[in-house]
Amino acid sequence: MRGHTERLAAPLSPEDQTVQSMPDVSPTKWHRAHVTWFFETFVLADNEAGFAPYQDQYWFLFNSYYEAVGPRYNRAERGVISRPGAHDVGRYRGNVDERFRTLVDGLDQGSLDKLAGTIELGFHHEQQHQELLLMDIKHVLSLNPLQPVYAGAPAERSEPDGLGWVDVEGGLVEIGHRDAGFSFDNELPPHQVWLEPFRMADRLVTNGEWLAFMADGGYRRPELWLSDGWAQVKTHGWAAPFYWIELDGVWFEHTLHGTFPVDPGLPVSHVSHYEADAYAAWAGKRLPTEAEWEHAVRSDDAQAEVAGNLADTETYHPRAAGPSTGRLRQVYGDCWEWTSSAYLPYPGFHPAAGAIGEYNGKFMSNQMVLRGGCALTPPGHARASYRNFFPPGARWALSGVRLADGGVRA
Amino acid sequence: MRGHTERLAAPLSPEDQTVQSMPDVSPTKWHRAHVTWFFETFVLADNEAGFAPYQDQYWFLFNSYYEAVGPRYNRAERGVISRPGAHDVGRYRGNVDERFRTLVDGLDQGSLDKLAGTIELGFHHEQQHQELLLMDIKHVLSLNPLQPVYAGAPAERSEPDGLGWVDVEGGLVEIGHRDAGFSFDNELPPHQVWLEPFRMADRLVTNGEWLAFMADGGYRRPELWLSDGWAQVKTHGWAAPFYWIELDGVWFEHTLHGTFPVDPGLPVSHVSHYEADAYAAWAGKRLPTEAEWEHAVRSDDAQAEVAGNLADTETYHPRAAGPSTGRLRQVYGDCWEWTSSAYLPYPGFHPAAGAIGEYNGKFMSNQMVLRGGCALTPPGHARASYRNFFPPGARWALSGVRLADGGVRA
Amino acid sequence: MRGHTERLAAPLSPEDQTVQSMPDVSPTKWHRAHVTWFFETFVLADNEAGFAPYQDQYWFLFNSYYEAVGPRYNRAERGVISRPGAHDVGRYRGNVDERFRTLVDGLDQGSLDKLAGTIELGFHHEQQHQELLLMDIKHVLSLNPLQPVYAGAPAERSEPDGLGWVDVEGGLVEIGHRDAGFSFDNELPPHQVWLEPFRMADRLVTNGEWLAFMADGGYRRPELWLSDGWAQVKTHGWAAPFYWIELDGVWFEHTLHGTFPVDPGLPVSHVSHYEADAYAAWAGKRLPTEAEWEHAVRSDDAQAEVAGNLADTETYHPRAAGPSTGRLRQVYGDCWEWTSSAYLPYPGFHPAAGAIGEYNGKFMSNQMVLRGGCALTPPGHARASYRNFFPPGARWALSGVRLADGGVRA
Amino acid sequence: MRGHTERLAAPLSPEDQTVQSMPDVSPTKWHRAHVTWFFETFVLADNEAGFAPYQDQYWFLFNSYYEAVGPRYNRAERGVISRPGAHDVGRYRGNVDERFRTLVDGLDQGSLDKLAGTIELGFHHEQQHQELLLMDIKHVLSLNPLQPVYAGAPAERSEPDGLGWVDVEGGLVEIGHRDAGFSFDNELPPHQVWLEPFRMADRLVTNGEWLAFMADGGYRRPELWLSDGWAQVKTHGWAAPFYWIELDGVWFEHTLHGTFPVDPGLPVSHVSHYEADAYAAWAGKRLPTEAEWEHAVRSDDAQAEVAGNLADTETYHPRAAGPSTGRLRQVYGDCWEWTSSAYLPYPGFHPAAGAIGEYNGKFMSNQMVLRGGCALTPPGHARASYRNFFPPGARWALSGVRLADGGVRA
Repeated sequence: MRGHTERLAAPLSPEDQTVQSMPDVSPTKWHRAHVTWFFETFVLADNEAGFAPYQDQYWFLFNSYYEAVGPRYNRAERGVISRPGAHDVGRYRGNVDERFRTLVDGLDQGSLDKLAGTIELGFHHEQQHQELLLMDIKHVLSLNPLQPVYAGAPAERSEPDGLGWVDVEGGLVEIGHRDAGFSFDNELPPHQVWLEPFRMADRLVTNGEWLAFMADGGYRRPELWLSDGWAQVKTHGWAAPFYWIELDGVWFEHTLHGTFPVDPGLPVSHVSHYEADAYAAWAGKRLPTEAEWEHAVRSDDAQAEVAGNLADTETYHPRAAGPSTGRLRQVYGDCWEWTSSAYLPYPGFHPAAGAIGEYNGKFMSNQMVLRGGCALTPPGHARASYRNFFPPGARWALSGVRLADGGVRA
Repeated sequence: MRGHTERLAAPLSPEDQTVQSMPDVSPTKWHRAHVTWFFETFVLADNEAGFAPYQDQYWFLFNSYYEAVGPRYNRAERGVISRPGAHDVGRYRGNVDERFRTLVDGLDQGSLDKLAGTIELGFHHEQQHQELLLMDIKHVLSLNPLQPVYAGAPAERSEPDGLGWVDVEGGLVEIGHRDAGFSFDNELPPHQVWLEPFRMADRLVTNGEWLAFMADGGYRRPELWLSDGWAQVKTHGWAAPFYWIELDGVWFEHTLHGTFPVDPGLPVSHVSHYEADAYAAWAGKRLPTEAEWEHAVRSDDAQAEVAGNLADTETYHPRAAGPSTGRLRQVYGDCWEWTSSAYLPYPGFHPAAGAIGEYNGKFMSNQMVLRGGCALTPPGHARASYRNFFPPGARWALSGVRLADGGVRA
Repeated sequence: MRGHTERLAAPLSPEDQTVQSMPDVSPTKWHRAHVTWFFETFVLADNEAGFAPYQDQYWFLFNSYYEAVGPRYNRAERGVISRPGAHDVGRYRGNVDERFRTLVDGLDQGSLDKLAGTIELGFHHEQQHQELLLMDIKHVLSLNPLQPVYAGAPAERSEPDGLGWVDVEGGLVEIGHRDAGFSFDNELPPHQVWLEPFRMADRLVTNGEWLAFMADGGYRRPELWLSDGWAQVKTHGWAAPFYWIELDGVWFEHTLHGTFPVDPGLPVSHVSHYEADAYAAWAGKRLPTEAEWEHAVRSDDAQAEVAGNLADTETYHPRAAGPSTGRLRQVYGDCWEWTSSAYLPYPGFHPAAGAIGEYNGKFMSNQMVLRGGCALTPPGHARASYRNFFPPGARWALSGVRLADGGVRA
Repeated sequence: MRGHTERLAAPLSPEDQTVQSMPDVSPTKWHRAHVTWFFETFVLADNEAGFAPYQDQYWFLFNSYYEAVGPRYNRAERGVISRPGAHDVGRYRGNVDERFRTLVDGLDQGSLDKLAGTIELGFHHEQQHQELLLMDIKHVLSLNPLQPVYAGAPAERSEPDGLGWVDVEGGLVEIGHRDAGFSFDNELPPHQVWLEPFRMADRLVTNGEWLAFMADGGYRRPELWLSDGWAQVKTHGWAAPFYWIELDGVWFEHTLHGTFPVDPGLPVSHVSHYEADAYAAWAGKRLPTEAEWEHAVRSDDAQAEVAGNLADTETYHPRAAGPSTGRLRQVYGDCWEWTSSAYLPYPGFHPAAGAIGEYNGKFMSNQMVLRGGCALTPPGHARASYRNFFPPGARWALSGVRLADGGVRA
């Protein structure tokens, strides 16, 4: 798992790994160091005999947002820090990996059991940053007039696939993580929710459908938009998804494998919650709630797909849906799916004690939940109860749209 | 009802009525004109024979946010408009009132029935602005070193009242407006929600309790705060509720009846959602969801209080709770109560067609729901299903805190 | 002189007198109070027996920028202060006037002589604010869609007058105030400057000439502009003088007497230093230095005009030049004239001791000198050595352009 | 000369060369590429047979501010561009150097003479960027908590040297470049200026003297400051020179050779014009005008020093003055010296035709002139008529203070 991070960074030069293109983006070498700091702080610090930080200042530089760990370096200034360089970060990673192995080898089973939860959290944490590393470098490279390619080549141009609907029964259903495996604290506790019967689209909205929305004035009609969304359209001049560029009347899309004409058969991606909501209003439908999404996926036995989920390492991009099968398509490996649910605590949610408790709970404000997974999500990372979240205006994440309908008491 | 607006404005000079102290605040004379514009636009325009606007530019100046009505004057610049003056606005009001009466007198019953919903909306709309007018002028006057008094005098200093808890049964309960009378569209449709059993505090949090929170480092401990809230604490230097000022170690509070030492027995007011949430974390409790709040109030037969609800025109300020009675106290006439619910559409919500549909729905983003009513709410305006809403950082509204507990599956 | 201030304010409602339309602008009632505060602070405070401020908070509210007098109210927030109202300010003025008269009547000749300089400064200070009051209310009213008129009516449309040039001999010339009458400290000391022979345009640049500059791409050609000026063109979208508005292909100008089609024969006004400089570059000429300006005016015996200078109280606007006479026209009563000189201390300049020393010296940074006077300047206020100054991007002052040429060693 | 740029960049990693720490700062590799672009654009483009840019996008990326050359990349975003990397820039430099040599070798004498001025400008331009490269990387490294060292080691701690004064005769003196060698256009034309007799300090103000200014409340007394300067003190919390940091009551200074306790004998550096002006006010003196500075230096035969001027490649830092000799010390190799002169065109100044004309003239606004040179200035680059310029608030340049006195007509 640790090696996967390094493989993702391998195509990137020291200069690429240094840049922070906007406050939301972190430099590649910062990601590589921060996930290492996480193990050093939460695993080694309290358990290694005679622990001392690898480098005092790293303690400060690579803390992301844990107030309880101490003061930290200002997030928006990560691009100012040229040292440690990409190579120095590699040495830091090697050092912590070795100390980690030594520690674990020396633990008895009881101590190991006590530490297992934190170690497992560290692995899942690093997987989240593997996904972020790719989202972030996509943004960095997109701003370069030389149009650098990260890796891969485009898939063949796809044909649009038909859209079907899956009916889902409502009732008093259980939501939240309740299985044996790992989950983050924000998926807990499982709890009951009342749902009226509803329908879910069996695939994501496509680029071709989005072009029709644009052609119909989608970005020029305030009646389709939430007020905050319309303000962003006006302020930022939104007229298409984030990475789309119009050249001589043709829409192109920046991807990690280069800049190519928009493929109408692929799922639309890099749209904000506001755009997703406006599209749904235009289509006479709505976004699903996160409870509807989770219940629909569980009802569909689609969970089985999770195990086989793989980031698309050929194109690092969503794929076409393929022919309809009467079941939900594109659930995990294409685009994170905006829901209509605000990111709030489940009834009875309690963050963990100590600094680790800052992992999720304190962000439950001004964000919307996304469900599923995307083409950049590491293998095995996603699951039905997984709650991803971004502010409603965020566009640099690999986010897309699945429509819902119904859900009203007869 | 229209006369009440003018009575509220009566103590204010033309200069007072002109000032906009921050973008969220509107000048008094703007409120008086805008509610008049609402009747002119939505009642007279389509129904008056040979309709022409009273003044073409008023059409532009006094549109608040209705995109469908046409371009509108920039909200943050309302304080730049010295004319029409306070007296001119009075004439505008008189003109529209007279045309309104003439129109209504001349309508047959069928036409009147068709128009009744919009007229009723206009009345409730004006009541909302009566409350806003007072909240806004409170802010304007608070910034003046001369410490002007709007009206009234302080009540006698109160003794802290004991805090009790009311147990509420859960189950599959109905939420939303379902009675004969008026409601806004955002209270619809009524729908079912599953609630686990929970408890509600029988009164609001007091100033005295808030002083204890402050003394215990409430504004200095990041672990109590949502991340966005903590950022505001740091950015704005929050260290007490909005209108509190410390002088020589004593806390004073700016009110519409003057500046006085903080009374520990009164409900704390003018706190943001972030502060309410941090207080609840400190107290080991939580805020109620809006469904819990509504169900608790309905279970308690407290609705009966609504009819008798009156803004406190002696002090324009929350009052002490009085002795515990085993039922919910201070439900409508003291402080709007922050809930833990984001302001989102009810399942099946559809805004009305046309410009009127912009009234509520488009604001369902980045806001939190408040329930109840406050000391500035006009008589008869509030009800159990009423959904007020503000951004989580807003402090100039008359907002307070009621705690909840439980609500978890056994 | 004090009465003139009140006459200028008379056409303005209490609401008009309250508005601050941008940080550079002050409310009319603030001007009226501040000039009064100046007499109270610098004349009464140290000389009146048993002095006490009229109102403690006025001391704070109406201090403009004198650090030595104590803390002061934030300039950009003057529009937030509704009280004291316009009428209250009138009473403050009356009170100080009366105390002033009582004081002066009771002084012996020696004391009076000692105080005379400060009193005279107070009068000239109030005259400066009379001019500012008009510039500021022009801006306030310009933002109102109702297009309010301050006073007066337009003059008859003028015919363009021919442009002539006046040759001025150079040499070692004396600059600065050296006569018997009053001057501000920034006009001192008189000193010698070396000038090569040069030429001055005998009138101001006209609107008609400015239209030609615009038609020739004046606002679209970076090669004509200073870099900072071009940045402002781009940032603010400058495409014409400040108060010009294009309606259906015709340029209109907002004035204190209403909004009218631009008159090609009148001097262009409300242009920034950057625009003046770009215009001169386009015309193949340059702006004069302040030394050239002063020397040219003195050489021309034009000083005699000063005594007769009167603000144009018919139109509050620059007038046409009239036929060429071989001498300098439009020197004092039309537009302040941008020079190419930065506002810096004269050799040997020393500000006065104490708070009064803050009057001019501390502003000698990032500003350019303007010479002459304008249609809003009170009678008798201007003179050949007078140094007005504004930041190079300022446009709300009544500023215009006079070209110069030559000045290079043969 | 070209090799010197590469030697300066040699100690810097690819990551170091990528960072832009604030909008005023450019990445090292951008400097290396931009000076190369200058030769490619102004020498090769019009003279090389079959010219094509090395890389089309470099044309856009490495244009600094030449509007006439075409659109250019946004200055504040230079740190976002990871490619071309440091190594790629090296290849670009090699390519242009080779094409340059080929071109020059093939030119006949007549063509070479025509091109000589531009080539010479290109060399002096690159020297300016050699100095900027060091100023900029000093800022980048200063923000890194790891405290990286660029090169060198501190000199031995110096003893404070006595301050003497040099009397300079006034009169009608000639200012500006009038010798055989190279100058920038802003040093032309030479012209006459009248100066009264004055005195110049024979060395720069020291850190020790600055500590006395600080101890006497220099940064807390508004009466010493220009109004704009005082606003910066308040806004940014200025309390010491730019690179000074207080740790446990001791002042340290960040330098290119590391962070060390402030040495009282060295010249104070990295102070803004505002600070220099406030210091002079505190000392009862003033800053010299640029004419005084140039005349004093020429009178002193100090020009001879220029030839021997060398950047201090041991410490990259100003040196102690050494014992007084009755002549001006520290004229070229320590700190750029703030003057009291705004950066304005000399009488008769005309920028060159075409894009090259944008080199200097368009920046003559809102800047102050500095004279002399500094420890980072390349050998042979400075001269008596050289006009450096920065905005009055700039602090990251290696700027210091020399006092003047007198200059007033007897």
